[in-house]
This record gives sequence, C-alpha cells and structure tokens, in this order.
Amino acid sequence: MNIKKIVGERVAKEVRDGDVVGIGSGSTVAEFIKALGKRIESENITVYGIPTSYQSKILSLTNGIKIVSLMEHSPELAVDGADQVANDLSLIKGHGGAHTMEKIVAFSASRFTVIVDESKLSESLDAYVPVEVIPDAIMQVMEEVRSLGGDPRIREAERKVGPVVTDNGNLILDCDFGIIREPEKLSVRLDSIPGVVENGIFPSRMVDEVYVGRGSGKVEVLKK
Amino acid sequence: MNIKKIVGERVAKEVRDGDVVGIGSGSTVAEFIKALGKRIESENITVYGIPTSYQSKILSLTNGIKIVSLMEHSPELAVDGADQVANDLSLIKGHGGAHTMEKIVAFSASRFTVIVDESKLSESLDAYVPVEVIPDAIMQVMEEVRSLGGDPRIREAERKVGPVVTDNGNLILDCDFGIIREPEKLSVRLDSIPGVVENGIFPSRMVDEVYVGRGSGKVEVLKK
Repeated sequence: MNIKKIVGERVAKEVRDGDVVGIGSGSTVAEFIKALGKRIESENITVYGIPTSYQSKILSLTNGIKIVSLMEHSPELAVDGADQVANDLSLIKGHGGAHTMEKIVAFSASRFTVIVDESKLSESLDAYVPVEVIPDAIMQVMEEVRSLGGDPRIREAERKVGPVVTDNGNLILDCDFGIIREPEKLSVRLDSIPGVVENGIFPSRMVDEVYVGRGSGKVEVLKK
Repeated sequence: MNIKKIVGERVAKEVRDGDVVGIGSGSTVAEFIKALGKRIESENITVYGIPTSYQSKILSLTNGIKIVSLMEHSPELAVDGADQVANDLSLIKGHGGAHTMEKIVAFSASRFTVIVDESKLSESLDAYVPVEVIPDAIMQVMEEVRSLGGDPRIREAERKVGPVVTDNGNLILDCDFGIIREPEKLSVRLDSIPGVVENGIFPSRMVDEVYVGRGSGKVEVLKK
C-alpha cells in the first residue's frame, strides 16, 4: 500500500477546473501531481500550476499542468509536503532545499494544504531547521545560529564536491535547535540575521490543513 | 572644498597596520579607499579589505588593499556611507543597491563606522527603504509592503532595459513608508516576508559612530 499515493490522490480531488495551484516539492507532492495529471486527462479540465522547484516544474509539465508564475497569478490553493508537522500544525520544511520558493508560494496562496504520511507527525518541532544563506555570509550566520542555541552544519552535496547549491545560488545550513518551543519567534530571529534568505520553519498561522496518510490507508484531515 | 574627501581622510587615519577592514560602497567610501591607498604607499603598512560590492572591490585593488573574505576573517572595523542618518544613529542604506552585502559585513565587524556629509542627517528616517527581493516573489512582496503601510516601486535600471538586478541576481523595491517611527520593528517585519532577502534599515544598535563632514570643513563624530 502506497500511503503517499493515497494522500496525493485525495488532495488532487480538491482541485477545480481552472484553479491556479501552488505546487510544492518532494515525493508526496509527486504523487499529487501524477493524480492531478490523470484527472486532467480523463475529465478534460484545465489546471494552472506555480511550481516551487525545477523538480516539480518538470513533473507538472509532463502531467499536463499549464505552468504560470506568481508575476501574473496568486494561487487559490498551494499543496506541499513537510519534513515535520507539530501538534499546532507548524512545520519544518527544506530538507529538499527548496523551502524559500515553497514559502513564497505557500504564503501567497489563499489556502495552504500540507500532505504527509504519519511518520512526519511530531508533538513538537525538533528536526533540524534548513536555513538558506548567501554564500559570503556563511561563517557569520553560523556564529549567530550558535548564539541562538543552534548547532549549524553546511549541507554537503552528493554527486558534486562541496556544498549543496540551491536553485537561487545560495548555501544551506542545517541547524539543530533541539525541541523548538516557539517556532514563529525562532523563525523571525533567523530571518533577521544579515545573510539569511529564508528559513524552513513555517509558523502554524500559514497552514490551513494537513492531510495525513495513516498506515491503515485512511486519510485524516487535521485543522486548527 | 571636498567634504567627502575630508571625512574619508579622517577615518583612513583610524586604520592600523594589519587591520582587516570591511569596505562599504559609494562616493564617500571611495574617498576613504583612496586616502587609505595613500597611507599604504607612504607608510608601507598592510591593510586587508573585505569589500561589499564589485565597485569597492575594484577600487580597493587599485589602491593596494589586500582583498580577503568573510570566510576566513571577521573585520575589526567596517566603514561605510549611508543614505540617511537619524538622530538615534539608525540608518537607511541601499540607494546603491548593495545593502545586503553591506549589512552582512557591518554586522560581522567589531566596530561599524559610518561616514557621511551633513546633507544625510535627518531627525527621523523618512527616505525610501530599499528591499532586495527574489524576482519570483516581487508581486507578493509588493502587496505585503502595502499592508505594512508602504508604497513600493520596482527600481528601474539605466543603461539596460527593465529592473536593476543586484550583485546577488535579485530585484530592488524602493518603499516609501513616510516617517519611520520604529526602524528596528519595521526591519524585522520586512525580513519576515517570504521572498525578502534583506532590507536597507540598519538599526542603531548596529552603528558605533558616525563621522559627519560639516560644510565648514570640520568633522564631527556622533556617538550614542
């Protein structure tokens, strides 16, 4: 049983003919895109997509979604996965390195729907927080992260020597803060460090609902 | 009488042999660099510079300053101009479009010295605030700036069609907020908007002193 596929199909049903949809990144979102592609073909509907990464752009194109941009549209709905979802529905994202564009798109959408399998649920946020940083500032930002109580590491690439470079040409610091008691406060502090482009904490006020695929095959909808 | 030259020469005297100096951008800083170059040649001292822009990098190189980076050094001193200086020594910078790197370097320095002529002094900050924005997010950030009470305009280039593109590959919104009563609060709010890389407000806590060139030819030092 493919839980990610079940959740992706369920949320694809929420999209209406003519909708502009923000399209996140990751394996659960890939299932959402594929399920949407089947609806577009079988029901002959039109869906406009604003992708958050190169990965989701390519997959959207091959599934019949018409690509548009934030320049001319604000999405009715944005759909994205998450690396961790806390009880209050705050999130950590960015383990795929695309959290800056994901945050821009989610923030601009009228409704932000998160799709995850149950392994992503946690009482509090305690996963590492990805922080996108302008390369020249990396050492100074690491020092500031430490002064906020975090343990930062530069994300190393695979299949290329040296660090991961984001789609925006920046680096990523993965920062371990232990249990994060006040996610929004930490997010504001991280964003205020000169050289930080965006961090992977999505405060709960940004999230409208979370669709959770349970091991049983059921989909549960969490709302605030 | 060249006031900018007088201020630049005065602050160049503060640099010691072997110092690592953060080097800002703009016409007053250009005078500082040239004065420093004269000292390097006549006194045979060594000065290491961390430039904040392509402009100041070239000028530093031609004046005998050894270029280093924030990767391996934190500057003892950073010297930069400002577009406006308020009574509390908070600043607006970025009319030259380099405020992101300027903020990174100033923030990392043990001491941040601002050099201006008296035309830049103002009781409160009321100049437009430059905000560096990831291109895809420009429309959404403009909407958020309006909801904070600002009037944003995309900075248009000269000698190239379309917008100014920063050294980081981003766009600049010039935002008119009228009189800014709480600079640090506005800075934090701007930085929290997804898609904002950095804004041009430098809160007074970042500033150690301001050297002001008066029309009389005197240089006054303002401290908090």
